[in-house]
This record gives sequence, structure tokens and C-alpha cells, in this order.
Amino acid sequence: MTERNIRVQPIDRGAVEDETVEIVERKGVGHPDSICDGVAEHVSEALAQAYLDRVGKVLHYNTDETQLVAGTAAPAFGGGEVIEPVYLLVVGRATKHYVDETGTEHHIPVDAIALEAARDYLRETLPALDLETDIVVDVRLGEGSGDLQEVFGEDERHVPEANDTSFGVGHAPLTETEKLVFETERHLNGPYHAEHPAIGQDVKVMGKREGDHIDLTVAVALVDRHVPDIDAYEAEIEGVRETVAALADDHTDRDVTVHVNTADDYEEGSVYLTVTGTSAEQGDDGSVGRGNRANGLITPNRSMSMEATSGKNPVNHIGKIYNLLSTQIAESVVDDVEGIRDLRVRLLSQIGRPIDQPHVADVHVVTDEGVAIADIEADVREIVDAELADVTSITQRVIDGELTTF
Amino acid sequence: MTERNIRVQPIDRGAVEDETVEIVERKGVGHPDSICDGVAEHVSEALAQAYLDRVGKVLHYNTDETQLVAGTAAPAFGGGEVIEPVYLLVVGRATKHYVDETGTEHHIPVDAIALEAARDYLRETLPALDLETDIVVDVRLGEGSGDLQEVFGEDERHVPEANDTSFGVGHAPLTETEKLVFETERHLNGPYHAEHPAIGQDVKVMGKREGDHIDLTVAVALVDRHVPDIDAYEAEIEGVRETVAALADDHTDRDVTVHVNTADDYEEGSVYLTVTGTSAEQGDDGSVGRGNRANGLITPNRSMSMEATSGKNPVNHIGKIYNLLSTQIAESVVDDVEGIRDLRVRLLSQIGRPIDQPHVADVHVVTDEGVAIADIEADVREIVDAELADVTSITQRVIDGELTTF
Amino acid sequence: MTERNIRVQPIDRGAVEDETVEIVERKGVGHPDSICDGVAEHVSEALAQAYLDRVGKVLHYNTDETQLVAGTAAPAFGGGEVIEPVYLLVVGRATKHYVDETGTEHHIPVDAIALEAARDYLRETLPALDLETDIVVDVRLGEGSGDLQEVFGEDERHVPEANDTSFGVGHAPLTETEKLVFETERHLNGPYHAEHPAIGQDVKVMGKREGDHIDLTVAVALVDRHVPDIDAYEAEIEGVRETVAALADDHTDRDVTVHVNTADDYEEGSVYLTVTGTSAEQGDDGSVGRGNRANGLITPNRSMSMEATSGKNPVNHIGKIYNLLSTQIAESVVDDVEGIRDLRVRLLSQIGRPIDQPHVADVHVVTDEGVAIADIEADVREIVDAELADVTSITQRVIDGELTTF
Amino acid sequence: MTERNIRVQPIDRGAVEDETVEIVERKGVGHPDSICDGVAEHVSEALAQAYLDRVGKVLHYNTDETQLVAGTAAPAFGGGEVIEPVYLLVVGRATKHYVDETGTEHHIPVDAIALEAARDYLRETLPALDLETDIVVDVRLGEGSGDLQEVFGEDERHVPEANDTSFGVGHAPLTETEKLVFETERHLNGPYHAEHPAIGQDVKVMGKREGDHIDLTVAVALVDRHVPDIDAYEAEIEGVRETVAALADDHTDRDVTVHVNTADDYEEGSVYLTVTGTSAEQGDDGSVGRGNRANGLITPNRSMSMEATSGKNPVNHIGKIYNLLSTQIAESVVDDVEGIRDLRVRLLSQIGRPIDQPHVADVHVVTDEGVAIADIEADVREIVDAELADVTSITQRVIDGELTTF
Repeated sequence: MTERNIRVQPIDRGAVEDETVEIVERKGVGHPDSICDGVAEHVSEALAQAYLDRVGKVLHYNTDETQLVAGTAAPAFGGGEVIEPVYLLVVGRATKHYVDETGTEHHIPVDAIALEAARDYLRETLPALDLETDIVVDVRLGEGSGDLQEVFGEDERHVPEANDTSFGVGHAPLTETEKLVFETERHLNGPYHAEHPAIGQDVKVMGKREGDHIDLTVAVALVDRHVPDIDAYEAEIEGVRETVAALADDHTDRDVTVHVNTADDYEEGSVYLTVTGTSAEQGDDGSVGRGNRANGLITPNRSMSMEATSGKNPVNHIGKIYNLLSTQIAESVVDDVEGIRDLRVRLLSQIGRPIDQPHVADVHVVTDEGVAIADIEADVREIVDAELADVTSITQRVIDGELTTF
Repeated sequence: MTERNIRVQPIDRGAVEDETVEIVERKGVGHPDSICDGVAEHVSEALAQAYLDRVGKVLHYNTDETQLVAGTAAPAFGGGEVIEPVYLLVVGRATKHYVDETGTEHHIPVDAIALEAARDYLRETLPALDLETDIVVDVRLGEGSGDLQEVFGEDERHVPEANDTSFGVGHAPLTETEKLVFETERHLNGPYHAEHPAIGQDVKVMGKREGDHIDLTVAVALVDRHVPDIDAYEAEIEGVRETVAALADDHTDRDVTVHVNTADDYEEGSVYLTVTGTSAEQGDDGSVGRGNRANGLITPNRSMSMEATSGKNPVNHIGKIYNLLSTQIAESVVDDVEGIRDLRVRLLSQIGRPIDQPHVADVHVVTDEGVAIADIEADVREIVDAELADVTSITQRVIDGELTTF
Repeated sequence: MTERNIRVQPIDRGAVEDETVEIVERKGVGHPDSICDGVAEHVSEALAQAYLDRVGKVLHYNTDETQLVAGTAAPAFGGGEVIEPVYLLVVGRATKHYVDETGTEHHIPVDAIALEAARDYLRETLPALDLETDIVVDVRLGEGSGDLQEVFGEDERHVPEANDTSFGVGHAPLTETEKLVFETERHLNGPYHAEHPAIGQDVKVMGKREGDHIDLTVAVALVDRHVPDIDAYEAEIEGVRETVAALADDHTDRDVTVHVNTADDYEEGSVYLTVTGTSAEQGDDGSVGRGNRANGLITPNRSMSMEATSGKNPVNHIGKIYNLLSTQIAESVVDDVEGIRDLRVRLLSQIGRPIDQPHVADVHVVTDEGVAIADIEADVREIVDAELADVTSITQRVIDGELTTF
Repeated sequence: MTERNIRVQPIDRGAVEDETVEIVERKGVGHPDSICDGVAEHVSEALAQAYLDRVGKVLHYNTDETQLVAGTAAPAFGGGEVIEPVYLLVVGRATKHYVDETGTEHHIPVDAIALEAARDYLRETLPALDLETDIVVDVRLGEGSGDLQEVFGEDERHVPEANDTSFGVGHAPLTETEKLVFETERHLNGPYHAEHPAIGQDVKVMGKREGDHIDLTVAVALVDRHVPDIDAYEAEIEGVRETVAALADDHTDRDVTVHVNTADDYEEGSVYLTVTGTSAEQGDDGSVGRGNRANGLITPNRSMSMEATSGKNPVNHIGKIYNLLSTQIAESVVDDVEGIRDLRVRLLSQIGRPIDQPHVADVHVVTDEGVAIADIEADVREIVDAELADVTSITQRVIDGELTTF
């Protein structure tokens, strides 16, 4: 094996934590764009697993184009109803016919698998969405070009070659604002929801830090059947504000102001109430790759990849793999090496080379005061090298659903 | 009330039972055309009931245009799978917005109601069809013209006026061949299926009588998961043949030959095996109004209406009402009046007149030998009159799902 | 060749011309059901021709399931507009991949051919419909079962075998009422439209004869851009009334009353005005096989086949062929043999026999007074025999667009 | 008017031109993602204009969700064909019903307008795409929430308020690599295409600079009807290589290597040939906002907004306006102020404030050697202030189609 082209150098900017203004956003799992991301990725996992089960290798597919067309709803305190169902179209390419080495023909029911995976995902993710009345799930999977097949074999040590010039970028550690934004959504959609069923999954969190003041703006779709009246609504909103404020206290010493559902107008009776817990029920369309990046955040202060990671084939889609891998490398480095204040990993592929041999692996570091690049370079390089050597484990972890993509 | 225009006269042909050649067909509930009929009618019932529950009257709608696009399947002994799901599009018109007398606005979720009704119907009717993988149900309901609204009020004695020149026709009694065809499908899809889960719902029965010989040709889609191998398949087919032959013995003294799945070729392994119990899974599209008439049969020897009865609004669609009513009248007359060998009832509407006052109610009779029209005319007329007077009960019975339309 | 099983016998009813009440209907080419029939048949012709051009034979297809979902429109004197386009879905099965005798692979672009054929047909048939704004044409053609391929070869004398037990029926001559209904629509949509562009293609004619009085009820969709105001509208309607009355005078000595657009209410300004010349623009859905039978009429007084003739493969779909052939036989017989007042031809297929050898060809005749069956039987039989021998010419004429199916 | 919050400060990084590795990409107008962007934006312009023409103001809409499902094609030297049409679904929200101040009701045919605009755009942009056979254009526009209507009035000086916390970013000047990538696509799709009709619109350009070496990788879909054979293909590719190399010579003194269609394999006959000039015909799906940012480029070395600019309402969608405006500000500053090597403008909105009063307008500058921020700050500030004051002209220029969004 040739040596990998790994560069470790100072970043030509300050740490994001030190910038004057920082903006961070996270669209929760129930946001229309995130619904599409989640469906696309879950369909991808199901297809990959089905290919492995049936023919022993992952065949060519990409399902990164789910489109959601919003419905119409009439939410009401105590329980309203969806008027016109949401329409969700799963779009992509997948190999439907395969002849294996023994000459056996396989017809893989990719449309049926995708339909089931999409419905399963929606059922698990959006408990207030009734799949019998509130949504139509449709599928249009075509076949791609035949020469892209056969990509992931029994020989697990085989490293595929890059089929495109592509680019991935990852960062660590998260800034305080990033952590806050991420954890706020995760907390509301996780432990807090478990206790408060009125919390819908369409939780959108915007964080804005100016100097040492952080504004956390949270929009939460409440589920009408769990909210009997306007007083209950106000109480729920106040509950969210308090739990987010408490969470913020745990994560930062900075001043944090929490705003919840700022567009509400109690006088006019205009509040953020939904039947299903998502704004997809009324007027908000969605599609894949329009929301969170692979690390779960939208961070205009940082380099971002335009790549829609969700739904891509995790075996040979170099953009997906490198975005996930660069994020993982950044986190590993920061976990294991002391003295790093901000770190960015960029991986650039070269067509035709094995993907564990990127054209360049670029590591830019802001060190803590008193730490020189030279002090940590060897350690960083070693971790990057090991992670690259293990690139195929990314594929496996994606198929197993262990890595999130949005 | 004016007197109704009822004519009772001899028919200008012999009884169908006496014709040399008679052809009768029934498409079972799992046939693609019947699936569409059933979905359309079930959606209609659900909409009618929802309107009654919400605004106290049935508003304008017609849902008589469901279209089924066949899927692709790979059936296999012991259990195969659907490859590409069936696509079912529920089409029609329905009032979505209504302001009642008190000025209260109602938004009726007709699309959501239709979606649920269609899925419920499929689940109940086709037990081997997995609604999570095997079918996509889509809905496109528009709004009709506004001036057709408000048609069925609290005042139950109000009889609506005909809004079209239309025509209904009914017959009684069924001929032996008709009975046999009808009962064969009902038996296979009912008691026999209960004992033999391998029997799919796509049972098509064709009866052909020449003189006193009847050929019953039965096509039955078997459900693969209940058929382990070709021997089991043969046994099932033989079982169907025997039960139908026994049924025929009970219904007629004529010679009956039973043919089951005649297109099968055991040598070639080409048999009528399905995953879902319906040919809709592979290559057979369907739509409303293309199969059975309102009495459940296709009878080219008799007058038939082209009207697609299923899915029509039972309050004001005169074609639907008159087809159901004329059939009911014919059956009532034959039940209560002796000496009738064949009877046809035709109802012709006149625009603008109450529907209990048809332009003409035409009763054509073939009497038994020795019976004169004059002997029975008064009794027949009385029954026809009473049934017409009670026309609105047809509407209620349709809404309650008591009358079948295909 | 075995002798054909042709039976000529007296009909067991009187002539339809002599019945007391007769009802006849024709849906013009712009009626939503007829639009679907026409699209389905035109797509069929285009596919058949494409197969012949590319592989020298017609491969398996059936495109008899076009579904039309109505749009929304705002017609206005002088010119209104379509608000929501009509949605037309062409559904069916067609062979997409074929390997010929030389091993050459053919990929037949059946979806593209169907799309173009449908749009061409709409453009020609509905001049006021703007294909850029008023309609969305979509296509979903699947593949049928592989064993049904290769059906129409170079060997033109090869007669295919029936693949189903099916039934066709034809009548001649038309009654006066039937002729009137048919000619009224043809005249309005032909010569009269050429002079009066305000006449839309959605012309529906209902004829009702009671004894010697005929009511012709005509519904004509006027095209708004050619109708500047209500006075012009009234003048157009009066023009239609007069031309139909004159036409009636030419065809019958019976009393004829002509009604045009009877639902109009000038006081309320409620008239039958359209942007596109068809009610499909607002609220009237349509599908194949729901309107006219193969002879262009709906005739409840006569035997009718439920078969949707339009869009079926003309090579091997026995129902289509026998409906067209029986009509043609009936017309030939009546043209060439004197003394026939009413004639019905029924053809019944038998699976596995060549289609020129029907199980039975049933000819029922009402002769003119003074003519006995025996006088004409030989002539009739000869014509029937010759037409059956030439059955494959039906296929060719359908492909060439010479035979109409609705 | 309050003073605007404009900050001018040094950027905390070097100029992108000075970074070691730079990556830039542009997806040409025929790339599936760009097709969606272009359709979405063209539909938006048509809707905005229609609202202005009909009700004198732009009503609420967003059409930023067009989805393209790839077709199947069989390209061939001299001319192949599309097998399965592309499916393009225009998705969004638009106000369909509006009552103006005088009480007049307006029904705006938004679906018909969108359909026509999409088809017009495709016809103009993709000359080799046959709209009668190669693509199905479908539309699903719902209505958004009613309270978002009435946004752009006769009072042209009215500045709307921000309805969201959003963010826009712009840069100037372009680096050499950026210019090269941009101009390469524009040249190939413009003047060069005019002379070489074989050049399809799906031109994708990737630029990678390492130090002073630039690799330009160009993928060009050739149009088969203009390429008679493999030799002609090679000649076209060589022509592209030469013209791009010449273009590069004009723009930079750096070393440039040009790669064209590197995935071609002449031995295997595997080349980038298409029927329609876009990979959408075979296997490449697309959607809005997945490709170029508002300045026409994908620039991972720079801050980017995730916002899908195309198709958004240009009156009140703050993300769209601020992305376009910040780009325009950056360009104006660089045009008028000397001594700037790299400049980034970020605009951050604040809900409820007029959009000409951003929460902060952040200008980060890298000055030329010898130039201090203080030397230019006043000039920069003045230009930013003037551009912000004129923010509503952005809206008008978008409606007029003068600003590109991708």
C-alpha cells in the first residue's frame, strides 16, 4: 500500500467559537425536509440489506430523491383531522434484475421493499401520523446504468475505487452553540417527548450567538389531541421554554435567551397546532438534502458539502462515504488528541483510486494556546491513517443504521 | 300524488331459460375490475355516512372512477412476493367545503376519508394482499359544480327530482345458469375459502348453456403461501372442481361440465399461482363499471345498462337508483306473484320529475303456461307501485352497505 | 378446413323498430369517456404500427384503461381559462423488450410512443384544448406475461387461436332513432362544427322514441372564445336546434322534438359554456369502455357486450375482434340480402380454436313480411362464412385506423 | 429611518485565491438538478407576473420543490430515442383564490400557469428534448396558509418585513478557478453550442486547484443525432478540450489541464452520448436546491447557504432575497472600491424588521497588500447602505428574469 496523502496544517481562520456572530440550525426529524432525508436513508438501508441477504453483495442503487408534497389539515384543540393527505414520492434508481455467478436469476422487489421501508419509518418516527388516512406513499424507482452494478462483495477487505471526483468535510468539536442546538432538538424529540406527548416531531431549532449571548429560537409543532385548550397550549410552550433553558444552563456559561413559537398570536388564536406533529400536513413541502448536513446541523460559519448524504448507496457513493468519514475522523481526533480547539477534515477523492487512498486528506487545526501543530501532528496523522484504512466499516455501519446522515 | 305510469305487458321474446344458447359471467370480488367497483362503492358509502354525520345530509359526490394499474409479482410454491406494487387511483368529485344554515363552515376531509375507506376495503376483501408492500393507494378527488349540492335532507320523506334522463333495468328470476354462476363464485369466495385459504379472491366464472348442457369455466387464483408444491396445487384444483360440481348438482338437473384453470400447463409448470390472490398483481389492470352489472352478473342474453353503478351518489344519481330499484322490483314481484317465468323491469326517468314518478315503469312478463297477463297484472302493478313509493329506502340501504352494486 | 358452425334462425322477439319504447344514446368524441376511448384506441394503433415497423409483427399489448381526472375551469363569454389542468393517465401493458429470430434485441419505446399518440390525438380531436396549459398526459405502461408475445407474423394468412371464451354482438340495420342519434352527433361534430367553431366536441345525444314520437335531447358544450355574449349563445343554441330538426326531417317521417341544452337557465346565467369544448375541464371524469359500444351507440333495447373494445390489441383480443366483426357481418348481410327487417349476429369463441372458427356464429333475423327465413338463409350463411374467413382483415383495418371502436 | 447595522472588518482567514487547495463546481443548465432549479424559478417568475397582471400585487407562493424522475433512453450514433419519458413534478404552494379591496373575486389558474411556464422553459432550454415524447410534466400546487397573502403592493416604496430568521451570503471577486469553471460552462452552452449543436446542455464542470495547477474536468452530454459515429464523437470531444484550453489561457497564467468525459472508454464503445442532451433521460434524477448556489457555483472553500433560492417568492422570502442581495453587494463593492482581494457579505434578518434593516450586515474583507481596512471602510459602508436601501429592486429584477438563481 502506498502512503496516504495526509496533510496537517494550521487553519487559516480562527476557531468558530471565537467568531463574533455564529449561526446554527437543526431541522428535527419531523421537519418535511428531514422526513425526506429519513425516508431516503431508511429505504437505502433496507435495499442494501435486501441485496446482501439475496445475492450476497450490495448492488447499484441510489434513493436520494424523496419528494414530499404537503397536505391540508384542520387541527383543533382536543383533536382535529387531516383534510387532504400528504403525498410522499420515493424516487431513485435500483437494480431490479441480477444474474449471479452460478447463472441464477434474481428479481429483487425494490419497489415493494422501498414502500415498506418508507411506511415503517414514518410509523416509527411520526406516531401522530395515521398512515391509513394522512399520507399517500408512492414509489418510482427506475434502473440505473448496468455497468454500475456489483459493488460490494463477500471479500470484505476489498476496497472499492472512487467513481467520481468528490469531496467530504467534517468538523470537531462542536461549538457550544452547535451542541445546544443539536441537544435541544434531541432532548425535545427524545426524553421530553416521552413525558409530553403533545410535543410533535417537527422541532426546528435556530441558534444565533453574538459574542457571548446566544438566542435559541425553537419552533415546536404541538399535537392537537394532547392539547385540550389554549391554556394547555400555553402551558406546553412554557414547559418547552423551561426545559430548553435548563438544558442550556448545563451546556454553557453564556447568556442564553430561549424563544418558543414566536409566531404565535394568542389574541388571534393563531398558534402552532398540528394533527400529526409535522408542518408537512399543511403547506410545507420537503425534499432530500435540503436540510441538515451529515453531522445533523446547518452551519453557515463552516465549510459545508452540498451533497445529499441520505439515501445514497453507502458502498460506492464517494460523496456519502467521505462526508461521514471526515466527520468521524474529526471526532476521533478530538477525542484522542489533546490541545485542539477547532478541527476541520476534508477528504478529496480521485477517480479510479481506491477510496481509502484519497487524493488528499486535509486536516486544518486551531490549537489551544500553547500547543503547536508539531506537538500533535503525528498523533493526528496516525488516527487519520487508521480511519482511512478502515473506510469500509463506514459502509457496514450505514447499512446497520448506526450512522445518521442528517 | 299523480298515478304512476306503470305498464305491464307480455315480453316480445321467450324466456331466457328457453333460449338455445345462454352465456353468463361473473367476475369475483378479487378480479381487478371488481376490486375497483368495490373500492368505489365502499368509498361512496364512507363519504355518504361522513356527510350525514357532519352536516346532516349527503352532499354532492361521485366516486365511480377508481383505476387500478397492475403490479408485477413473482409467485412461488410456498410463498413468493410482489415485485412492483399495484397502483390504485381513487378518482372522483366530492364536496369539500359546506356552509350550513347556521352559517357554520364545514371542511370535509373527503380525500382522507376516501383513502381510509379504500384501504379498509382492500384489507378486508383481499387477506393475502399486504397493504404495506403490495399496493400504493392514491386519491385525486376534485370538486364538482357547486349547484349540485344539498341533496338529501333531514326531511326523510322528501323525494328528489331526477337530474338526468336515465334508465335502469332489472330481471327475475335468475335462470339456472345465472344462479349457478353467481353461487359458484359466492361459494368459493365464502364458505369454501374459509376452509381452503389457498383459494384467492380472483375467481372468475363463465357459464355457457347450449340446450341442456352447461359448461362452467372457473378461473381461480391460488395463493402461493398455502400451496407448497405442484401436487398440492393439483389437489386444490381438483377440490374446486368437485365442490363446484356438487354445487351444480344441487341447483340443476341439467348436465354440467366443470372446467377449472383450463390455461394451466403442468408439464411447463405454468399454473395460476399468485402471491395476493388477484391477477392485479401481475398484468391485469382494472376499472369501475367494466365488470358485473348491478345484479352481480354479466348477461348478454338480457338487456343491460352501461351505467357504472358502483361509486355513484345514491341520493341523486338516477342511473344508480333505477338499476338497483328495478332489480329489487323484479325480485319482489317474482317472490310474491306466482306464474311468472321471466320478468324484466325497466325504469325510465324524466328530468325534473320526482324519482318516484318515472316517465315509464315498463314491466315485461313471460308467464308460465296457462297463466295470462290479466291474471297477475293487478298484483304486479301493486308491488311496483309500492316499491316506487319507497324509492328513498334504496338510498338508505346503499349507504348502509346492504345493497351490492356489482 | 372444417365447416363453420353458423346458425341462422328467427329472432325470438320483434324488431326493435317495432317496440313501443326505444332508447338510444351517443356520447360524442369530446365526452370524457369518449376521449378515453379515443386515446386508448389511438395509442393502440400507434403501438401496433410501431411493432410492425420494428420487429415485423405485433407484440403483446393492451392499452384499454385510460383514466381521465377532470380539471377546473372558469369559462367566460369571449374567452375564459382552465384553472386546474385535466389529468389523463394512459394505463396498460406493452412488450418493451424483444429478441427476434436473429438474436437481435429490440427495446421498444412504448411509453414514449403512447405519450405522443395520446397528445397527437387530443390535439387533433379537441382544437380548443391547449396542450400546454389545459392537460397533463401521464403514462403507466407495465409489461404483461411473457408467454403472450409474438402474435401477428409475417405469414399474413396465419389465423391466431382464441385465448379466451368471449363474445361479440352486432346489429343491422340501425333503427331510425339510432340513425338519428348517430348522425346528429356526427353532423354537429363534422360539417356543422366546420362552419360554427363555437360547437365544442362534447356533444351528447339521447334519443327516446315512444310509438311514433321521437325526442332528441342534445347537450352541446359551447366554446367560450367563439361566443361573445348571452345573445350569441342563444343564437348558437337555436342554430343547433334548427340544424338537428332539419336533419331529422331527412331521416324520418316520425314526429321529432329537438331539445338542446335543457339544463340552461338564462335568467340565472347558467349555461353550458366551456373553455375547451369538453366537460372534462370541469368535474366530469372519464374512462375507457364506459360509453358507446363498438357500433358507436348505447342501445339498451339490444344485446350489448360489456367489452371495452377501444385500446385492445386487434391481433389476439377475441372480444375486440368479435365485436367489430359481428357488426361488420350484420351490416354486410343487410346490405346484400333483401327482406331483412332486423338482424343480430353473435359470435362466441372457443379457447384454442382458430378465431375464424367460432364455437358458434348465431344469426337471428326478423324478416320483412312475406319473407321466410328459408328464402334468405343460404345467402346469409355465405356472407357470414366469407367474413369469418377474412377475419384477419379486421386486424389490419383496426391498425390502419379504418374501423372505429366507439 | 434608523441607521443600518453594517460592520466592516478583516476576514479571519486568507483569500481563497491563496489557499493551497481549491475546489469549485458548476452544474450546467441541462444537469437534472439545474433543470429543476430552472423550472422552479421560471414557474416563480410566471406566477409573480400573473399575480401582478391580475390583482396588482404578488400573492403568496413558493414553488421551490420541482422533482425530476429520470427516464430511460437508447442513444445511438446518428440518432437514438427516449424509451421511457422523464417525469417532472412541479411542487409548491400558490394562492388560488383572492378577493380584492373592491370585493371582486379572482381565481388564479396557478396550475395551468405553472404547467405552461415549465414546458416553455424546457422547450427553450433543452432544444433536443421533444416535449411530445420525452417528458411528462405534472403539477401539484397546494395552497399555503391564508395569513401569508398580500405581500407586494402598488405602493412600490413599501418594504416588507422579514418573516423568518434567515441568512444570505455573497462573495466577490471570483477566484480564477471560479471564473474558469463558470465561464467554461457558459461558453460551452452559449457561443460554442451555437456552432456545435452536438453539445448537449448537461455540461458539468469541476475545477480543482492545487497551488498553481488547475485541473478542469468537464463532462459533456453529446446529442446523438449530431454525432454520426465514434470518429465524430472523438472530434467533438477534442474540440471541447481545445476550446476550453483556449478559454483557460485567456483567464489565467496558471497551468491548466483540461479533462473531457474522462469516463469514456472507446474500446468498449462506452461514451457519453444522449438523445436529449441531458443525463435526465437515463438514470439521473434531480431536484431543486441540490446544485449551484445563487452565484452559479458550488464553492466548498467558502461559506454557503443551504437555501434553495430557485422558485422562492422574491417578495417576501428573506432567504432568497438576502442570498441574491449579498452577492450583488459583494460585486458592487468590488467593482467600485479598489484594493480588495477577497470579500464576503453576510446578511442576517430579524423577524419583524423591514428587510432593508437586517439584524446585521457583516462585511469581511481581505485587502490587497498595503491597503488598510480603514482606507476603504467608508466607501464600502456607503455602497452596502445604498444597496440595502434599494432592496425591493431585487424583487423586481427577479420577476423580470434579470437575476439568475443557480
